Amino acid sequence: MKARKAVPALPRGFSFAATHCGIRKNKTRLDLGVIVAEGLVAAAGVFTTNQVKAAPVLLTRRHLAASRGRARALVVNSGNANCVTGPAGLSASRTTAAALARELGCPEREILVCSTGVIGVPLPADRIVLRLPALVRASAAAGKDFDEFARAIMTTDTRPKQAWASCRISGKTVRVAGCAKGAGMIHPRMATMLAFLVTDAGAEPGLLHGVLRNAVRGTFNAISVDGDTSTNDTVLLLASGASGAPALRPGSADARRFAQAIEEVCRSLALAIVSDGEGAGHLVEVEVRGAPSDRAAHRVAETIATSPLVKTALAGADPNWGRLLAAAGRAGVAFDLTRARVWLAGKLVCRRGAPVAFNEATLHRRMLEREVRLALDLGAGRGQARMWTSDLTAEYVRINASYRT
Amino acid sequence: MKARKAVPALPRGFSFAATHCGIRKNKTRLDLGVIVAEGLVAAAGVFTTNQVKAAPVLLTRRHLAASRGRARALVVNSGNANCVTGPAGLSASRTTAAALARELGCPEREILVCSTGVIGVPLPADRIVLRLPALVRASAAAGKDFDEFARAIMTTDTRPKQAWASCRISGKTVRVAGCAKGAGMIHPRMATMLAFLVTDAGAEPGLLHGVLRNAVRGTFNAISVDGDTSTNDTVLLLASGASGAPALRPGSADARRFAQAIEEVCRSLALAIVSDGEGAGHLVEVEVRGAPSDRAAHRVAETIATSPLVKTALAGADPNWGRLLAAAGRAGVAFDLTRARVWLAGKLVCRRGAPVAFNEATLHRRMLEREVRLALDLGAGRGQARMWTSDLTAEYVRINASYRT
Repeated sequence: MKARKAVPALPRGFSFAATHCGIRKNKTRLDLGVIVAEGLVAAAGVFTTNQVKAAPVLLTRRHLAASRGRARALVVNSGNANCVTGPAGLSASRTTAAALARELGCPEREILVCSTGVIGVPLPADRIVLRLPALVRASAAAGKDFDEFARAIMTTDTRPKQAWASCRISGKTVRVAGCAKGAGMIHPRMATMLAFLVTDAGAEPGLLHGVLRNAVRGTFNAISVDGDTSTNDTVLLLASGASGAPALRPGSADARRFAQAIEEVCRSLALAIVSDGEGAGHLVEVEVRGAPSDRAAHRVAETIATSPLVKTALAGADPNWGRLLAAAGRAGVAFDLTRARVWLAGKLVCRRGAPVAFNEATLHRRMLEREVRLALDLGAGRGQARMWTSDLTAEYVRINASYRT
Repeated sequence: MKARKAVPALPRGFSFAATHCGIRKNKTRLDLGVIVAEGLVAAAGVFTTNQVKAAPVLLTRRHLAASRGRARALVVNSGNANCVTGPAGLSASRTTAAALARELGCPEREILVCSTGVIGVPLPADRIVLRLPALVRASAAAGKDFDEFARAIMTTDTRPKQAWASCRISGKTVRVAGCAKGAGMIHPRMATMLAFLVTDAGAEPGLLHGVLRNAVRGTFNAISVDGDTSTNDTVLLLASGASGAPALRPGSADARRFAQAIEEVCRSLALAIVSDGEGAGHLVEVEVRGAPSDRAAHRVAETIATSPLVKTALAGADPNWGRLLAAAGRAGVAFDLTRARVWLAGKLVCRRGAPVAFNEATLHRRMLEREVRLALDLGAGRGQARMWTSDLTAEYVRINASYRT
C-alpha cells in the first residue's frame, strides 16, 4: 500500500510547465499547467458519471471524439471547477482551448481542457489566455517540469502526487509517468478527480482506452475519501510513441506488460490520493470476502468505506467493529450474521455472530498505525472486493466548513 | 419545524419508571426504564431493516407475533445494544423478558424488550434482573415518571425527546405521548433508533400497525443524521383503550384524527432527534421538487442529506450550493441541469445551469440560523420529497472517534 518514491525518468515526447495566472488569490500558488506533446499523440480519457458535468469535461469528451482519440496538448487550472457556470462556462473552456491551439498552431479539437476547484463561480478565462504564450515558451525551453505541473493541479492536497513505471517492449524501455490531485469529493465512478498519465509507448487510441478503463476499475474507482463523486473527475492518458518501441498489438505480451505498468501508476496515484485525503490520518484498506458476488462484495465494501461511524472510529483508533457490521448490514446484501467474521488490523474480533475477546489497548495501538486493514468475510459465497478509504477527522470538517467563504 | 413544548397530560392506563442498574459506569445516569400497562393492551411495532438485527429486535418481533399484537409491558436499557452478541445475547434478552413477566404475572410473550448503546459487548442481564422488582414497584407507586423514562433511553443525546398530542373521539379526549432517543447511527429505514408511543385510544393491533407504518414513513424514515442505519431501530406504539372512547373503526373519521395525532407526535420526535443529532448545530430541511417520481425525489433528497460535503458546508454556514448539485448528480436520477433551480435559505442561487448572483455575507448570515432550508427543483416532473438532516461538525467526529474506548 506504499506509493513509489519519485524517480525522475520521464517518458519522451512531452514537455510540462506551470505558472500562477491569478485564478487563486494566493500569488505563491501555481494554478495553471500545460502538458505539450511534440506532435499529435494517441489519447484516452475516462470521466465522471455524475449527472452534473463540468464544462471542461463536456468539451474534452467532445474534442477526443472529434479528433478520434488524438491530442496535441492539455491545459488544466485549479481554484475553479468551471462547473454549473452555464453557457459562459462552456465558452470559457473553449476560449482556453482556442488560445492554446493558436499558440501551438493546431486545431482546437486537439486540445484537452480540465478544471478543478469551487463549483458555480465564473471562470476568468482571460487570465488563462494571458499566461498561455509564456507557459508554452517555458514548456519548450525547460520542458521537464513535471513536478511543477503536479503542483499546479492541487486544491486541498497537502502534497503533489506522482508515480512512475516502466517496462521493456521489443528491447526498448517504455516509460509511464502520472500525476493526480485529490483530496475531497473523492468517490470516483469511472474516474477520479484529475489524473494525467503520459507514456512514450506507441499505441492506437482504442488499445489505450481499453488499458486505461481496466486500470481505473481496481484503482481510482476503488477509493473513497468522502463518498461524494466530483463533477470534474477526469483521467487522461497520452502516448507519444517516442520510445522507439513498435506500436502495441492488442492481446500481445507487450500489451499486457504495458497494461501492468499503467495499472501500477494508477494504483500508486489512487493510494496517494486517499493517503492525502482531506484531514486524513490513516490509509484504510477495506477487504470484503465471501460475498454472493464480486458486485455484492463491492457494495458492502463501499458502504463500510463511506460510513461516517466507521470512519470516525478509525480516526480515534477505536476498535468499534460493531459499526463495520452495522454498515455491512445496510448495504442491501443478504448474509447470515452467524457465518460472518470480522478482522480489525489483522485481529479476529467477531465470529459466529458473537464477539471474540481481545486486548483493547493492544488493538488500539495497532490501529494508531498509519495504514489500517479492515476485513470482513460474509461466509456467503466467493465474491470479493477491495477498497481504500481515509478516516473522518475534525480536520476534514474544518477544511470543508469554509471552502467557499 | 418546531418540536412542541412539553405538556404533562399522559394517556391513561400506563405507568413509567426508570433507574440506574449499572450497565453504564456513570452512576448518575439512568440506564433502565419500563412502561407497564394496567392490563393487556394493543401493540404495534416497526423495526430496522438492517441485515444485522440486535437480539432485542428479534425477540420483540417474535413476541408481538406470538401475542398477536398485544403487550403488557416493555423494558429498555441504554449503554449496550445487545447486538452481535451471539446466542448469549438472545439469552440475555429472554432472561430480561422472563424476569419482568414474573414480576407482572404474565406470559413472556407479552413483554417487549429494547436495547441501545455499543454493539458487540455482552449485556449483563443480571444487573437488569436485580433491579426489575424495585422498578415495577416504583412504576406502580409513582407511576407517571415519563420524563425519567425518556432520560433512561438516552445515549449521546443531549436532552430527552418527548411529544404529546390529543384528539376527540366520540366526545372523549384521547391522548398520545411519545419519547425517542437519537443521536447517531440515524438513517432509519422503516423505523428509527428507539421511539415509544403510548395512547389511551382503543384500537385493534391491525389498525394500530397500519397507523404507525404510515406515520413513520414521512417522519422517522425522512430523517438522517449520519446515513448509518442502526441495528436496533424500533418504534413501538401501545394503546390502552383507557380513555373510554370506543374502539377505532378502520377508515372512520375518528381513525383519521387519531392517525393525525400519531403522525404529529412522530414528526415532533423525528425533528427533535435531528435537532439533537450528534454535534449538530443546525436542523436542515431538504426539499426536492420536480423529480421524475416521488421515489426519485427521495433518492436525491437522501443523497443531499447524507453528503459529507453538503453537511460540512452547512456546519460552516458556507453558501457552497455547488455541492448540493454535485450530490444530486450522483443520486442515480437523470435530470437536465439547465432546467434545475436551487435555493439556499430561501434565496435562488442557481437556475438554467448557471449561478445567480447573491450577497455572500447576507446569505452566510441567514445560514447561521438554527433552522436552514435547502430546496432543489429538478424541472423533470412532479415527484417531490422532504427530508430533515443535521450538519456535520467537528463535534460529531469528536463524539464518535472514541465512543467505545
